[in-house]
Amino acid sequence: MPADEQVNRIKRFVNFVDLVERNDFNIGGNVNKDRPETQGHAQLFRLFDPNCQFSIITSQPVMKSLTQYLWFEVSDRRGFINITPTIEGLVRQSGVSDGLCLVNAMHITASVFINDDEPGLHHDYEIWLEKLAPHEPINAYRHNRTGEDNADAHLKRQIMGREVVVAITKGKLDFGPWEQIFYGEFDGRRKKRVLVKIIGD
Amino acid sequence: MPADEQVNRIKRFVNFVDLVERNDFNIGGNVNKDRPETQGHAQLFRLFDPNCQFSIITSQPVMKSLTQYLWFEVSDRRGFINITPTIEGLVRQSGVSDGLCLVNAMHITASVFINDDEPGLHHDYEIWLEKLAPHEPINAYRHNRTGEDNADAHLKRQIMGREVVVAITKGKLDFGPWEQIFYGEFDGRRKKRVLVKIIGD
Amino acid sequence: MPADEQVNRIKRFVNFVDLVERNDFNIGGNVNKDRPETQGHAQLFRLFDPNCQFSIITSQPVMKSLTQYLWFEVSDRRGFINITPTIEGLVRQSGVSDGLCLVNAMHITASVFINDDEPGLHHDYEIWLEKLAPHEPINAYRHNRTGEDNADAHLKRQIMGREVVVAITKGKLDFGPWEQIFYGEFDGRRKKRVLVKIIGD
Repeated sequence: MPADEQVNRIKRFVNFVDLVERNDFNIGGNVNKDRPETQGHAQLFRLFDPNCQFSIITSQPVMKSLTQYLWFEVSDRRGFINITPTIEGLVRQSGVSDGLCLVNAMHITASVFINDDEPGLHHDYEIWLEKLAPHEPINAYRHNRTGEDNADAHLKRQIMGREVVVAITKGKLDFGPWEQIFYGEFDGRRKKRVLVKIIGD
Repeated sequence: MPADEQVNRIKRFVNFVDLVERNDFNIGGNVNKDRPETQGHAQLFRLFDPNCQFSIITSQPVMKSLTQYLWFEVSDRRGFINITPTIEGLVRQSGVSDGLCLVNAMHITASVFINDDEPGLHHDYEIWLEKLAPHEPINAYRHNRTGEDNADAHLKRQIMGREVVVAITKGKLDFGPWEQIFYGEFDGRRKKRVLVKIIGD
Repeated sequence: MPADEQVNRIKRFVNFVDLVERNDFNIGGNVNKDRPETQGHAQLFRLFDPNCQFSIITSQPVMKSLTQYLWFEVSDRRGFINITPTIEGLVRQSGVSDGLCLVNAMHITASVFINDDEPGLHHDYEIWLEKLAPHEPINAYRHNRTGEDNADAHLKRQIMGREVVVAITKGKLDFGPWEQIFYGEFDGRRKKRVLVKIIGD
């Protein structure tokens, strides 16, 4: 092996060890400190070679993930919010190229669903859900004896669903032409959360 | 390198090789023999170093997973069972810190859904589902010509859903304040199964 | 170490290096060139050992995945198609032994759901969905003022759901006795897509 190539190899090995020592890769730690929500799950193995008298270190990312909580406060009792751009931003931030993105309401009187961003359709949903599970009379629902008036919201949310699971392909939400993600509020006028969990590699 | 440090390194290397030889890590095998359902998926590479005359072994867990089947027998035709504590136990058992937990009914006249553990609400669900998809008259449904009387159960299950996908964060179900997982039975009085699949790392 | 064992080790090391050099494992590349949709996500580390004067290469598959798009054209406005055999074939093709399979409609007037392959039940679904969200009168829906006549299809799809997530265990869809995956069309007579994303190891 030529001397310069050997020097080159030594330098690259030293660089790699430096990288590990500088803690850029560590078990369960952050890969990129500018993105505190992004985790590169790594397993660290330090193999000691007694003959060669130095250690060989391998650090393997197992799976990438991102966890984010979104807050919403809808000023009316009911409403739909298109959250697609926010989710697209989180997918980019995650660095996941291929995987799954779960988006779910963390409250049981709200939904996350995928459909069309068309105001007429949202009006139709409102009328339809009110017909299938009317808000009034309040006392028609035993749940409302607890002092709540939101029993209908628990029912409407079952029709519209709690969560969506969306494929990520080539770093993007793998969507059909009209798919948009909505937060559906059925008992608003207070702060509520949506969870986004992205996993993949 | 000081002699004691070198001895230390040799010991640690030998320990690592021992671990592999003892088969605690193997391809597709069990990481922990006390938890037969828990799998630590590993890839084993044995790299032979002809100069140094010993082998270097790396064993990398790729993804953790747990698969469990839960059995239920509801004594009435319909009923809801809170299965959250059972799922929480399985998440702990899986050792998954960050990932996804799928819980689904394996029968097509039952549901798994997330909502409130409030008896009044469960009563409201019962009344509401019976209104949207009444059990009787039996002969109103073509499916019941097969000799079944459970067509309504197939419909009710579509409203309430087959499955939930729940995020796991820091080793726990990442839940909002009132989220609870329920098994929803619409054609009981016989044994049925629910599948739990946990993946992550 | 006996001479033949040493020769053996050298051969195996050389074989491993050859494998990497031949590019059968590469970062983000295809593991099997006959299955262009199947990806073995790998991380490549090349560790240089300056004493021993050769490089040690480890290549670790992190997660397997498969992405496939299925096309459907239902000749009537509404219809159900059993797509289970197609999904089973894709699971085999993916090489995933343990993981999750997401199947979702990419159009917002169609569903993917799991229920019974029984024609009487499908007839009951048709009647029931038409009762809950009737196609006519067209002008009862504000969405149809856009020139569409498919507002009811957007509603029906919410009842039946956008997607299913199915566990994969031991290389197969982990299904109960009667579970079958259906594509549900509510506004047919044109080509539409379903996405299949399989991840695991």
